[in-house]
Amino acid sequence: MEDLYPSRKKDQPEILERKDPVIHTDRSNDKGAPISKEQLDSYDKNGFLQIENFFSDEEVKDMQKAIFELQDSNKDVTSDKVIREPESDDIRSIFHVHHDDNYFKDVANDQRLLDIVNHLLGSDVYIHQSRINYKPGFKGKEFDWHSDFETWHVEDGMPRMRAVSLSIALSDNYTFNGPLMLIPGSQNYYVSCVGETPDNNYKESLKKQKFGVPDEESLRRLAEKGGGISVPTGKAGSITLFECNTMHGSTSNITPYPRNNLFMVYNSVENRLVEPFSGSKKRPEYIAVRDSGVLTIS
Amino acid sequence: MEDLYPSRKKDQPEILERKDPVIHTDRSNDKGAPISKEQLDSYDKNGFLQIENFFSDEEVKDMQKAIFELQDSNKDVTSDKVIREPESDDIRSIFHVHHDDNYFKDVANDQRLLDIVNHLLGSDVYIHQSRINYKPGFKGKEFDWHSDFETWHVEDGMPRMRAVSLSIALSDNYTFNGPLMLIPGSQNYYVSCVGETPDNNYKESLKKQKFGVPDEESLRRLAEKGGGISVPTGKAGSITLFECNTMHGSTSNITPYPRNNLFMVYNSVENRLVEPFSGSKKRPEYIAVRDSGVLTIS
Repeated sequence: MEDLYPSRKKDQPEILERKDPVIHTDRSNDKGAPISKEQLDSYDKNGFLQIENFFSDEEVKDMQKAIFELQDSNKDVTSDKVIREPESDDIRSIFHVHHDDNYFKDVANDQRLLDIVNHLLGSDVYIHQSRINYKPGFKGKEFDWHSDFETWHVEDGMPRMRAVSLSIALSDNYTFNGPLMLIPGSQNYYVSCVGETPDNNYKESLKKQKFGVPDEESLRRLAEKGGGISVPTGKAGSITLFECNTMHGSTSNITPYPRNNLFMVYNSVENRLVEPFSGSKKRPEYIAVRDSGVLTIS
Repeated sequence: MEDLYPSRKKDQPEILERKDPVIHTDRSNDKGAPISKEQLDSYDKNGFLQIENFFSDEEVKDMQKAIFELQDSNKDVTSDKVIREPESDDIRSIFHVHHDDNYFKDVANDQRLLDIVNHLLGSDVYIHQSRINYKPGFKGKEFDWHSDFETWHVEDGMPRMRAVSLSIALSDNYTFNGPLMLIPGSQNYYVSCVGETPDNNYKESLKKQKFGVPDEESLRRLAEKGGGISVPTGKAGSITLFECNTMHGSTSNITPYPRNNLFMVYNSVENRLVEPFSGSKKRPEYIAVRDSGVLTIS
């Protein structure tokens, strides 16, 4: 398959134009969408959309209970799916929860969520990756800027930009407790990065990304084009949808306030993974799902 | 002299009550103050005050030019006054600029600033410490929570809480480029910290503080009492005044936007330094001024 988004193949970084729509259902069908025209416009323009109070207080309580039960039951578990903080042993992420845990399987199948992602991606969908992120008070580390799509394309063989990430806030997100930061408009540009991809890169990159890292000059240019940095904040139960190529990162958290979320990536069934464009071997199923049915008929 | 604010002397942290007023001019004299009653109330209650557009655009341009000239002329200088980033050689701070540089001496003597700090401290003042902080885009590191007074008391022998820090923003301060974060109301509590003070601690502590570090439980309690965390933002030319005991820290800066400021501490002439309460030897003059005249007659 032709590599429409080459990266980690040249000595110099390059900014390429996006070759896919941001919203894959024709905009003439806006009236049939489960979200408003203004919300679609905002997602189209900025590459992300924040929706407050998406889940009820009761649903939030259930999800909070569930993530801590899972953290607790994994406390002493040695598994590649359980990622720990580089400088301590605290659990930072647990992967593949939509598959391994019946409760989170149901959350991934929430019809309200599926209606939205089906519309954005213009097709049926499946879960490409899921994880719970725990960013505890005082200890949460920063995560450098990156496009998820760049990694998923190069390391997992995701052919096109036709996936959307969903973050469900399970603690209150402030500007100061290590929030998700996004560069608005950056979904329209693909930063082709420098460097090759070593085998088994994922074992390190889940802690700190070293390959597929966009260069400072490209980031500066994206932020200039997009008019700065956006920091969506909101109470637990709000959701952030962001396009797979939207440049994002997060800062450290030195406050007493944790920042936990459930993160799930929906990919179009018409965009299933092929061989990694790096030529390296495939990453494991819990990071990049290949063997999955369709989540819903839209 | 009696140690009213003991710290680093016990095995357990403790939160002590403040024994000094926050505003040292009697509040019945509010009408004679150079700032409004609302501003005084805010400083009194929260322990800090943000004033937008304090300096004109032209003054800001001059100061910006001056800090980069100084950074440039110190590029290859090896001096204790020049602090560099732990993981690179970039200049993070230059100390003692109110003394070593005629331009910054004038800034420190700006009558508009002196009027305010004279009123807050209820006396004539002098500069206890000054420095320029450079927090470059992409590379600025976080600084953990601390009370400046705790260090100045223990390591420098500052007897009472009668000093005020002034930060002049020399780049636009957003919520996302490594801003100063403060715990409102924390000026009213003194966190007596655990541990001793090694000799020459300042050589490390200017990079990363390891002693006089408040414990997480105390920080949690202060944030609960104060109702959270405050993040003053503002254009270059805004100023932040914060009381010497106000708990503050700052997060890392992964954005392309630098965050530079001129930082000066005004101390009351009635609160001059005595022997360090740690019993250790004195820190150098560029960190803790002992030999200084009075800046102004209020």
